[in-house]
Amino acid sequence: MSIERFSLNQATVKRADLATVLDLAAAAGVPAVGLWRDRVAEIGLEEAASRLAGSGLRFSSLCRGGFLTDPGAAGEAWAENLRAIEEAAALAAAGAPGSAPVLVLVVGGLPPGDRDLRGARDRVRRMLHRLAPEARARGVRLALEPMHPVFCADRAVVSTLAQALDLVADLDPEVAGVAVDTYHVWWDPQVLPAIARAGEEGRIACYQVCDWITPVPEGALLGRGLPGTGHIDFASLTRAVEEAGYRGDVEIEVFHREVWDAPFERVVGDCAKSFENTVAPHLRGG
Amino acid sequence: MSIERFSLNQATVKRADLATVLDLAAAAGVPAVGLWRDRVAEIGLEEAASRLAGSGLRFSSLCRGGFLTDPGAAGEAWAENLRAIEEAAALAAAGAPGSAPVLVLVVGGLPPGDRDLRGARDRVRRMLHRLAPEARARGVRLALEPMHPVFCADRAVVSTLAQALDLVADLDPEVAGVAVDTYHVWWDPQVLPAIARAGEEGRIACYQVCDWITPVPEGALLGRGLPGTGHIDFASLTRAVEEAGYRGDVEIEVFHREVWDAPFERVVGDCAKSFENTVAPHLRGG
Repeated sequence: MSIERFSLNQATVKRADLATVLDLAAAAGVPAVGLWRDRVAEIGLEEAASRLAGSGLRFSSLCRGGFLTDPGAAGEAWAENLRAIEEAAALAAAGAPGSAPVLVLVVGGLPPGDRDLRGARDRVRRMLHRLAPEARARGVRLALEPMHPVFCADRAVVSTLAQALDLVADLDPEVAGVAVDTYHVWWDPQVLPAIARAGEEGRIACYQVCDWITPVPEGALLGRGLPGTGHIDFASLTRAVEEAGYRGDVEIEVFHREVWDAPFERVVGDCAKSFENTVAPHLRGG
Repeated sequence: MSIERFSLNQATVKRADLATVLDLAAAAGVPAVGLWRDRVAEIGLEEAASRLAGSGLRFSSLCRGGFLTDPGAAGEAWAENLRAIEEAAALAAAGAPGSAPVLVLVVGGLPPGDRDLRGARDRVRRMLHRLAPEARARGVRLALEPMHPVFCADRAVVSTLAQALDLVADLDPEVAGVAVDTYHVWWDPQVLPAIARAGEEGRIACYQVCDWITPVPEGALLGRGLPGTGHIDFASLTRAVEEAGYRGDVEIEVFHREVWDAPFERVVGDCAKSFENTVAPHLRGG
């Protein structure tokens, strides 16, 4: 067992700035990081890329573009997505060999007062088709993230992996893939065939691990635990992703108040242990 | 528009006992009620059936049997399900013409410490096959209820309508149907084809309406609103259920602290208005 494919997603140590996250990961022997745009913006893209290059760490993904469902915000969302694509390209170029130029897309929920779910999903498809050439031009791969149906109204109208695959089906897999996050897909009776299909179609751009814990907190957002602390079977999901041909880094991305409030070093250490015990044994050679 | 197919599910006025619910419905011109086992037990089945008969109301369903996933509780759950079947038969016989001998099944979540979702779902299938002859013998129809995936860990491992249809596929539709609750299925990208399939297979035993409101409260259970107060499009779902051939009563079943705390008469009046405005226009002849 090892942590050679472990990537620390920055959201897991939400209160740490980018420089601190890079130092924490390097000190703990974590080989890769997933970054967030707000923390990149704090120091500017050039400085962020320079620090990443200096850290010797791989870059596994940037969170996040998207917000494609609100017709009124299309102009602003468009510009933000273009900037996010630039950032993902620059960070992947700055990361150690094996870095992935992946931009994770959270598509957005229903606009206020709008109940037309089909219409919102159609807007996602159209915006993906508009974004794809921009991503291709910069060598970036979009990772459409299906989110748990508890977020359908307010965060992401893409709710299953099969639906995400349908939405990118007409696009080049090198440009438009999907993000598989255990927290979002574990409940799906069709998740294993959907992962196999994602592999056959060459779509898995990102694999994130995070557990489902109960009770669900208010707003649902922070009900995530380190792998092994909740209800998800990481063996079957991780093996399915491996069998589907994914060979990239595996991000631990946890949103939880207690995790965020804990000392950073302890969180990174707990993540590494969780990865070794719960995820790594199910990776090839694990 | 009218409320001629409106059934008041007792859980919407959770703090009212059975006699009070019958009085409230009759006084408001509501033609049908859905009842809960705990409130039947308070006065005993015989008395409950007698009062229901006296009310002149239709009976649309009994909530709830199920809890089929815990291997350790199989004996107890089995006996409870047999009692629930008896109760559904007796109440349907006591209700006004058009009453439906329907027992809604909430299948249960993962047993504590158990992460084998496939195993839990297999137990549901086996228990359904054991229960079906018992239901048939008493003229009762089981209504397997897929629940929103937010409840997969702790309440119901049956998460989509298609999955529920698969689980009952080998059973006589007259004995084993499904419950369609807008709150649980609205997010599903495949919900409209699944409702159509449920119709073709003759499986829709119960249609419940309830809205999805945000933010989701802690535990998720009480995040339900009267139709029209949240994010769900009742037009497309109600039309789909009608086109699928469902002609039974439509239950409003809302779990929400403020609804439970409000004066009963106001809640029943609000439900009737919600039904008239949000649901009835999409029923045949609505």
